[in-house]
Amino acid sequence: MNLNNLNVPHNYKNIAEQYGTPLYIYDTERIKDNLSAILKFLTYQNSKVFFAVMCNNQPEILKTIKNLGIGVQVNSENELDLVKEAGFNISDISFSSTGISMELMKKLSKENIEINFDSVEEVEKYCALNKNKTFGIRVRIPKRIKIISDEATNIYSHSNVGIEEKDFSKITDIAEKTGNKTIGVHGYFASNVFDEKPFIEFGNFLFKIANNFPDLEYVNFGSGFGVRCKEKDKDFNFKKVLKHYSSLCNKLSRSFQRAIILKIEPGRTLLADAGILLVKVTNIKKLSPKKSEISVNAGFAEFARPRVYNSYHIIDNLEKSGKPKKVYDIRGNTVLQNDFLGRDRKLEEVKEGEFLIVKNVGAYGIVMASGFPGKKLPNQILISKSKIEKSEIEYNF
Amino acid sequence: MNLNNLNVPHNYKNIAEQYGTPLYIYDTERIKDNLSAILKFLTYQNSKVFFAVMCNNQPEILKTIKNLGIGVQVNSENELDLVKEAGFNISDISFSSTGISMELMKKLSKENIEINFDSVEEVEKYCALNKNKTFGIRVRIPKRIKIISDEATNIYSHSNVGIEEKDFSKITDIAEKTGNKTIGVHGYFASNVFDEKPFIEFGNFLFKIANNFPDLEYVNFGSGFGVRCKEKDKDFNFKKVLKHYSSLCNKLSRSFQRAIILKIEPGRTLLADAGILLVKVTNIKKLSPKKSEISVNAGFAEFARPRVYNSYHIIDNLEKSGKPKKVYDIRGNTVLQNDFLGRDRKLEEVKEGEFLIVKNVGAYGIVMASGFPGKKLPNQILISKSKIEKSEIEYNF
Repeated sequence: MNLNNLNVPHNYKNIAEQYGTPLYIYDTERIKDNLSAILKFLTYQNSKVFFAVMCNNQPEILKTIKNLGIGVQVNSENELDLVKEAGFNISDISFSSTGISMELMKKLSKENIEINFDSVEEVEKYCALNKNKTFGIRVRIPKRIKIISDEATNIYSHSNVGIEEKDFSKITDIAEKTGNKTIGVHGYFASNVFDEKPFIEFGNFLFKIANNFPDLEYVNFGSGFGVRCKEKDKDFNFKKVLKHYSSLCNKLSRSFQRAIILKIEPGRTLLADAGILLVKVTNIKKLSPKKSEISVNAGFAEFARPRVYNSYHIIDNLEKSGKPKKVYDIRGNTVLQNDFLGRDRKLEEVKEGEFLIVKNVGAYGIVMASGFPGKKLPNQILISKSKIEKSEIEYNF
Repeated sequence: MNLNNLNVPHNYKNIAEQYGTPLYIYDTERIKDNLSAILKFLTYQNSKVFFAVMCNNQPEILKTIKNLGIGVQVNSENELDLVKEAGFNISDISFSSTGISMELMKKLSKENIEINFDSVEEVEKYCALNKNKTFGIRVRIPKRIKIISDEATNIYSHSNVGIEEKDFSKITDIAEKTGNKTIGVHGYFASNVFDEKPFIEFGNFLFKIANNFPDLEYVNFGSGFGVRCKEKDKDFNFKKVLKHYSSLCNKLSRSFQRAIILKIEPGRTLLADAGILLVKVTNIKKLSPKKSEISVNAGFAEFARPRVYNSYHIIDNLEKSGKPKKVYDIRGNTVLQNDFLGRDRKLEEVKEGEFLIVKNVGAYGIVMASGFPGKKLPNQILISKSKIEKSEIEYNF
């Protein structure tokens, strides 16, 4: 993967001027390429991919995902409505959340949505409502699964997400007493992990505890695969990890004497580098002889990841001039103090009115945009090969 | 101030059921009371209050502020449009931002908006466009102004916001050469500071450097006044701080032989405790014999401050039952791991379907709401005394 120089032959400057900035640009071909890179190594026959909708729920993106023939993982009633509008069948939807209310439980049950429950209490509610139904559970990640990566975020082994191993017998008891079945285990342990070791350990753990559930039909891994953000990052080793999972799933299938389904739910992996954000330089403030501050017309309002997750995103000149590089902080042109897209970045000398490109923004970009402080949300376009598919993407707010 | 038990005789439970949760409720009377608490000690004759719109830009809130007869501080073109729609006159608008573009500069100049510039470069652009016009500057806060408070956020003495003292002569030179005047100094040093000492030092600093500008007409303090968030917090000592500023402004006026205007720009001070968020319990997950996790139907999607600023907000049972208290984590019912409104809180025993109340959410609440992950934005209502003024507040997105 090439750190999102999108598969697009367009002149970005013309697009920036035509559609206005700040502007999110998504490339459907890149999404397809990213899926292919996974499928290439997901050789296990009974496997299924679900796109994690939370990373980008815009209608045109969902339609693109639908056309790729994979499923969707949703986490809220609103997301469920969105994927149904985008044309997904019930059988292609996987629901995982936390603290599902009785009200929502009734709706999900009625519609036969596949759910992975986060607590014994939710399983109790579901089983009180249903008979002859099936469900999965989210599994608490043991603290011993250590992640050695500065880039990893949302490390779940320190959280109370999921159901603890000690409570598995409660789950099977409740299911049995009410005539329902626990058919799946779902685990997710962190975001943006490059190291394969914890993935291997996590796989071993999940396939081991899967044996607690005699009615098992699937093992679901979430995702968390590292996405290249810096030039120095290596590509995630899908080959090693997915091969291991495939082998474990083969073994489990033999032991259960039926084909166990292997599920994964990538989000950032599919979308991150399929999106860029074009921004315009509004002012350049000299801070010292060695450094200046570039204000651009986007910041926390449009792209919150750098502020919320302290995440790194490549920022580059849209048009290369060949001028010597200088050191810049790049910030939103708002009154906020901490409104930086990047600090201490080397760019070819920049002038007011020029455009910059922020990379890897296709996931957790527009969905986290609040407009704060006091701004309108940015424009979005979807590009497929040489064609601008949608000049405006409807917002899901 | 009483930690936002709003001035409202309403039955919140009925309101929650009628309008649906999560629900922001704003109380216009409380906004008025908060303004009165400031005005009581802002005894200096030539003073003017500007509401910092970034903390809540909803149209009905802006109309309420308009009715109170004060001005508005805006930070973006969009906010400018909103305050004009709410009926504010140009003379009641103060514009402060960072990195103002030439394009916006032309618009602001044409409309005669009062601007406080953040950089020499902006002053150059403005003066290249204008003649016989006036402007103010934002001043870099010196590192020596130390803030001793765990609650303080956005401490500006570590930032590059504002123009450094060493560049003041550049500003006056540019203004003089182009026939324009520097008429104001604007300073802002942090959010939520309770300690009066840095306010006193900051006042001394700002009134001292004001002497660099012979055409001076105003000194503008921003705000940053601490807002009570916990029971143990004391009320901010407006008396001491505003009395000191008034005395300094009197002295400066005598020295300039004309009435210098004292400006302040409170945001949270006026709005924070004028808003509450009603949320509904969707599930209760037992974590240990001593502690449970309450999921509620609001979190980062609707109220981002706890996650972005690690801020503390009182969470309470909506209806008191008198039952013994238990320890709870309170989280949004989404798939997000860190989606907590509060942790280790003591509440009277809670049941699914009951309502909780989150306090001090009137400022930096709805404006920072992104709906992430995958949710719709919450409902809002505005209440004045016993009357529900607006059952739905239009969103500014």
